[in-house]
Amino acid sequence: MIDIAILGCGTVGGGVAELLETNCEQVKAAAGDEVRVKYILDIRDFKGTKYENLVVNDINIIVNDPDIKIICETMGGKEPACSYSKLALEHGISVCTSNKELVDFYGAELSEIAKKNNCSYLFEASVGGGTPLLRTLKTLRHEKIDKVMGILNGTCNYILTKMKYENMELADALKIAQDKGYAERNPDADILGYDTARKIAILASLVSGKRVHYESVKCEGITKIDKLDFKYAEMLNANIKLLGVYNQGYEVIVAPFLIPNSNALYGVNEAYNAILFHGNMLSDAMIYGSGAGRYPTASAVVSDVVELAHNLNKFIYNGLSLELNNDIKAERKFKFLVRAAGQDALSAFGNNITELESINSQCAFITEAMTGAEFDAKAAGLDIKNKIRILEAI
Amino acid sequence: MIDIAILGCGTVGGGVAELLETNCEQVKAAAGDEVRVKYILDIRDFKGTKYENLVVNDINIIVNDPDIKIICETMGGKEPACSYSKLALEHGISVCTSNKELVDFYGAELSEIAKKNNCSYLFEASVGGGTPLLRTLKTLRHEKIDKVMGILNGTCNYILTKMKYENMELADALKIAQDKGYAERNPDADILGYDTARKIAILASLVSGKRVHYESVKCEGITKIDKLDFKYAEMLNANIKLLGVYNQGYEVIVAPFLIPNSNALYGVNEAYNAILFHGNMLSDAMIYGSGAGRYPTASAVVSDVVELAHNLNKFIYNGLSLELNNDIKAERKFKFLVRAAGQDALSAFGNNITELESINSQCAFITEAMTGAEFDAKAAGLDIKNKIRILEAI
Repeated sequence: MIDIAILGCGTVGGGVAELLETNCEQVKAAAGDEVRVKYILDIRDFKGTKYENLVVNDINIIVNDPDIKIICETMGGKEPACSYSKLALEHGISVCTSNKELVDFYGAELSEIAKKNNCSYLFEASVGGGTPLLRTLKTLRHEKIDKVMGILNGTCNYILTKMKYENMELADALKIAQDKGYAERNPDADILGYDTARKIAILASLVSGKRVHYESVKCEGITKIDKLDFKYAEMLNANIKLLGVYNQGYEVIVAPFLIPNSNALYGVNEAYNAILFHGNMLSDAMIYGSGAGRYPTASAVVSDVVELAHNLNKFIYNGLSLELNNDIKAERKFKFLVRAAGQDALSAFGNNITELESINSQCAFITEAMTGAEFDAKAAGLDIKNKIRILEAI
Repeated sequence: MIDIAILGCGTVGGGVAELLETNCEQVKAAAGDEVRVKYILDIRDFKGTKYENLVVNDINIIVNDPDIKIICETMGGKEPACSYSKLALEHGISVCTSNKELVDFYGAELSEIAKKNNCSYLFEASVGGGTPLLRTLKTLRHEKIDKVMGILNGTCNYILTKMKYENMELADALKIAQDKGYAERNPDADILGYDTARKIAILASLVSGKRVHYESVKCEGITKIDKLDFKYAEMLNANIKLLGVYNQGYEVIVAPFLIPNSNALYGVNEAYNAILFHGNMLSDAMIYGSGAGRYPTASAVVSDVVELAHNLNKFIYNGLSLELNNDIKAERKFKFLVRAAGQDALSAFGNNITELESINSQCAFITEAMTGAEFDAKAAGLDIKNKIRILEAI
């Protein structure tokens, strides 16, 4: 019997408890032993539910119980998740989490603490929800992975899918996403790209072996995307997706991209996530799955529980490092699709542009490859309606 | 230092040797120790190459060397690969392989031998080449996976991609695939679906936990697919792909399918492979990668070498079982897209058909859902030009 505790029994934590019950036979076969929830730490008391007798309010009860070998931290946010995780690891209890904010902010430090105390800190559910991503990347350590890019935010992808396939405006698509529970009342973290930035920062850290902080990610959201952009995308046999992009040596960015229909990310729709990566031997590979949702995310947490069950009292390599990534310098050049009022922009961007058929009296064209800074310099004083980078190849 | 031997230093085996050299630092970090090729068993002598001094012709030299902990069997075919693998496992040497024929034919027996001798039999490279598939499925044992379907043959996918995007006939696309080295001179194993059948048989065995033999897979190839089918597919916003399909409880089949553009498999083009699966908690997930090729396949072999290096003298669960799968009975019903000469077919298939706009004086329609046997009964005596199953949802 392996006893675990769940910190925060909300959407994800509650899903973990349910999964362990619904799939108890499968979990037992996978973990090599029965997995039982002994404690739930939550501010609610779950009176009248089957969890009633499991609830505690004091983390010390959990970390001082020698039966507890694994803790699922599904509280989210920095505190008290950080202090609790630290305390658990200092007691030699392994922690797995869905908390991307904490992994980005303090994950490398928590990993060091885990290593010192012969236990582990895993975070499969923090990137891509149910997408079986980090464990797959971990089996590719023998590759030189130089590029990772992905659709990492289900809410934005849902909105962009509605805009493309149902010809909606962003505001209307956002409203539906909110009604369906995909988007928060305050959707800024999603649509301004911050959530994607946290996830690509974690991925860039893992793949480069050196820490890339969320704050260093250059971030553009989807708020300027308009129905017209999808019309131009269609002309170019492309789709528009919000991507987080890591290219070895270049700045990590989050921005909307035009994706040609020859790229595997083109057809990743609805609230799905997908992450494409390139290894020197492997070539391209992609992992696709449910980017969010109670059960898919719980399934990712439980995949960590299973791995931890097989490695009790051991530190499992998780790819995080305290060393800062200083290799990331240049901004990568991309071609841009540009919409602008009037015709001035055409001449400002020089001779090497490709003009597109005009819709709605705006001009539209594709620039030569340039950095965002070079773009801004050329665009100074012009009435640019939108610009979208073009993904040429992974 | 971990010493290994490579049996068969052809495309894949040679790729393994190269990868271990090119990525030696990465492999060392991944495996926790340096990995060295001590022997190459091959009928060639590799005179004048750096492999010259590694070549042996006698398997007994390898299995009797106590330094050898891992063998990569990249010979292909049943014999002598089977006898050599058996001999190695009996000596407590773990084996990893790219040999799908052997895995299907004798993999479960080899796994039993491995278990008895505290070593392992792994076969990541046998399905999907470089696609990181089996190791990912292994991290999902806590799920109830009831469906697996995939594009498992790069040659067929390349041919179908050319037909769709370059409006080619099958014969012309096949010729290009042969010129590019994707397809063999005798392409039957690919285009008749046999290769896909072997792979889906292995996947069905792994996911169901019980053995499904290649011979029990119902198999239709792509030889009847015609440019016209792609015209109808386009009308229906669909693509045509050769799929291997496992649905819990149903017959395992290989056949061309119409894939709607809302499905993630729709956009998997060129020689890429992709496998979509459904878990009760996870929902849908997909793994995409290079289905073949020297380096991607070698990378999959090396991922096994790394796992074996961490688990010397241990049996690693690999999902194979000697127990036969007897749950597979019914044939699943699908709707069919039908092309037929004349108008007789329309009435033969009853009132619930959806007629499509005719091209080239043939009639075309979509049937209600039925089994292949039901289809054949209705089609008796009619001049059916082609029928393609329609994938409605995973």
